[in-house]
Amino acid sequence: MLAAAAKVFCEQGYVNASVQDVAEELGILKGSLYHYIDTKEDLLFRVLSEVAEDTGQILREVEEEADSMAPLDALRLYALRQVEFSMDHQVRVAVYHREIEALSESSRRLLVERHRRHERFVVGLIEQAQARGEVQPAFDPGALSKCVFATIVWTARWYSPLRDARRHFADRCAEFVVCGLSGPLAEGA
Amino acid sequence: MLAAAAKVFCEQGYVNASVQDVAEELGILKGSLYHYIDTKEDLLFRVLSEVAEDTGQILREVEEEADSMAPLDALRLYALRQVEFSMDHQVRVAVYHREIEALSESSRRLLVERHRRHERFVVGLIEQAQARGEVQPAFDPGALSKCVFATIVWTARWYSPLRDARRHFADRCAEFVVCGLSGPLAEGA
Repeated sequence: MLAAAAKVFCEQGYVNASVQDVAEELGILKGSLYHYIDTKEDLLFRVLSEVAEDTGQILREVEEEADSMAPLDALRLYALRQVEFSMDHQVRVAVYHREIEALSESSRRLLVERHRRHERFVVGLIEQAQARGEVQPAFDPGALSKCVFATIVWTARWYSPLRDARRHFADRCAEFVVCGLSGPLAEGA
Repeated sequence: MLAAAAKVFCEQGYVNASVQDVAEELGILKGSLYHYIDTKEDLLFRVLSEVAEDTGQILREVEEEADSMAPLDALRLYALRQVEFSMDHQVRVAVYHREIEALSESSRRLLVERHRRHERFVVGLIEQAQARGEVQPAFDPGALSKCVFATIVWTARWYSPLRDARRHFADRCAEFVVCGLSGPLAEGA
């Protein structure tokens, strides 16, 4: 149901799409769909929550592994896994970033709060790397983290599974992130 | 007129917004607005065309300067100027990337064609840098260029003029791009 809803929201845009369209995509009656959801916004919230759930699961896995890793290696692993997720779930990730503002304030806030955990993790690793002299200490970790998320999020917009070799490009994006963070020090030091 | 339209489209979303809303934002009658435009889509197309015009102007300026520069320096300058544009015109840039798919196929294609000039420029510089041994030759320049555009585009979503020092962060994004491209070679060579 959520995959069908994501497809319809992606193709038609959330505002244009109706619960009827989602029911047709599923080949069921609209009434049957209303057994599972209350409103169209409820459906959107569930699609976006599932994305938050899945990327949160990746975060937890990387957090566990990160304990025994250098901070930039943990960042590389985090970027790699999240970029791969953006590649494998392009439609859902694109809908997430395009439509999150269509949610009511309270629903949106729940998702933003969940994203904050990702920000704290990435910012924390950048701060650790700065303490080790691996990232320029003068740069604001919050702003740097935005550059990291840009690479992850934008992947869902441009990646073409037919054209691009999945692992090669995920590796490349992860390297882009790590070198983007650590590069200036080598040059400037 | 275009600034008012961009504001309304950004706040309400293009599909929700009406020509009436834009007229109210301007403090004029809807009929007066129809002197200048034919349809709501016409208004969206003009907003996005203006963004394409302005970023195209930046491209031309950087192209001129680039003739006497090393390719990675030209890329740094291009990223810096485009990130600054995303910061200074957040609303218009955000509407561009969120609503471009709401345009008719023919209008959309005109804008995509204009963006191709940016892609060719960035890809060309990456290829030159590869020929000079400054970027890993094994990486696909097209995919690398997407990472560059990710940093530029995403800025419009996260930048906060009250929180972030404009030039410092534009510099940081430009460095992130250049080091992201050139970093792995230094490490791996």
